[in-house]
Amino acid sequence: MGGVSAPENAPNAARLPHVPKQDRSRATRQRLLAAAVACLAEHGWAGSTVSVVAERAGVSRGAAQHHFPTREDLFTAAVEYVAEERSTALRALFPDGAADRRAVVAALVDLYTGPLFRAALHLWVAASNEDQLRPRVTELEARVGRETHRIAVDLLGADESRPGVRETVQGLLDMARGLGLANLLTDDAVRRERVVAQWGALMEETLG
Amino acid sequence: MGGVSAPENAPNAARLPHVPKQDRSRATRQRLLAAAVACLAEHGWAGSTVSVVAERAGVSRGAAQHHFPTREDLFTAAVEYVAEERSTALRALFPDGAADRRAVVAALVDLYTGPLFRAALHLWVAASNEDQLRPRVTELEARVGRETHRIAVDLLGADESRPGVRETVQGLLDMARGLGLANLLTDDAVRRERVVAQWGALMEETLG
Repeated sequence: MGGVSAPENAPNAARLPHVPKQDRSRATRQRLLAAAVACLAEHGWAGSTVSVVAERAGVSRGAAQHHFPTREDLFTAAVEYVAEERSTALRALFPDGAADRRAVVAALVDLYTGPLFRAALHLWVAASNEDQLRPRVTELEARVGRETHRIAVDLLGADESRPGVRETVQGLLDMARGLGLANLLTDDAVRRERVVAQWGALMEETLG
Repeated sequence: MGGVSAPENAPNAARLPHVPKQDRSRATRQRLLAAAVACLAEHGWAGSTVSVVAERAGVSRGAAQHHFPTREDLFTAAVEYVAEERSTALRALFPDGAADRRAVVAALVDLYTGPLFRAALHLWVAASNEDQLRPRVTELEARVGRETHRIAVDLLGADESRPGVRETVQGLLDMARGLGLANLLTDDAVRRERVVAQWGALMEETLG
């Protein structure tokens, strides 16, 4: 029988005897979240269940359900977690704040072309037909959208008190989302790079 | 036993005795295509089968399969058919060709906010995970995308021989697609209208 430091129901406890329980719990949670995003990106909503994710993360189904009681909990938390990670990474790319606008436009568009966007897209589309998922995803999308807008305004050094600037930045983020969609079925990198270069130049002119 | 003009397997033949057979066949086909787009927009790919569409269109399953042997045939044809209808309607809005750019930007964005975009989005997302669907939808998306680009260039009076103009128009269409995505879960009309007004003004300045 294990004590508090090595409970029976923690399979890694024997190998990681010095890792405090709450850190192990956090690590398990993060493994589940990362596996959930990868699963959603690869297999879509229909192929993404708590069991599939638990197996992929090497976690028991019971442990997965302890962290995330429902399928909706797991996948909305996963998309939110990765969105936060990406926001942090984006800010870290430009540690001095407002930066070269062409580089910022390129980095913003990059947010929408990886597995996170693909996962989020599957979640959005599923939510559009599933009443249980829709309010959760709508709320999440609004929150992530506001945060991304805030980062974009900061890094572009955009003065939103000037008329039209807010809508210019919003349109730019809509364009980034559209570029993500265009990358769903084919590798659109070559075309995208030219569009991003041109729109980086236009932002430079427009935002002054 | 019915003759050629009123075959047993055409339930409407008795009511429409003077409609030539090929016109009835075309009408059946169009009813199936319209029902397929509506079904895809409302229920997504998972809920969209040939049987469901046939019932919605008031057509026998056998007749539906005569027109569209596979599920992939039916839904790619449906999205293509409606995309063509929309292109024709868009050109008809501006019969004299190049027109007021703000009005053209608004009309282009409208292409991406209705049931067709919703249906196409479900098809794209399903195709990203289904090997049987992906090549068909990829080819369709490329074809529809080229046609939309051509219309946008014409109506905006954009001179693509000038550096950057092609990419400006492409980015505008990517923005329109992104605005369609933002409208998936919530009614985004108020925000969208402001973005469209601002980007209409940007296009006016940029395209000269």
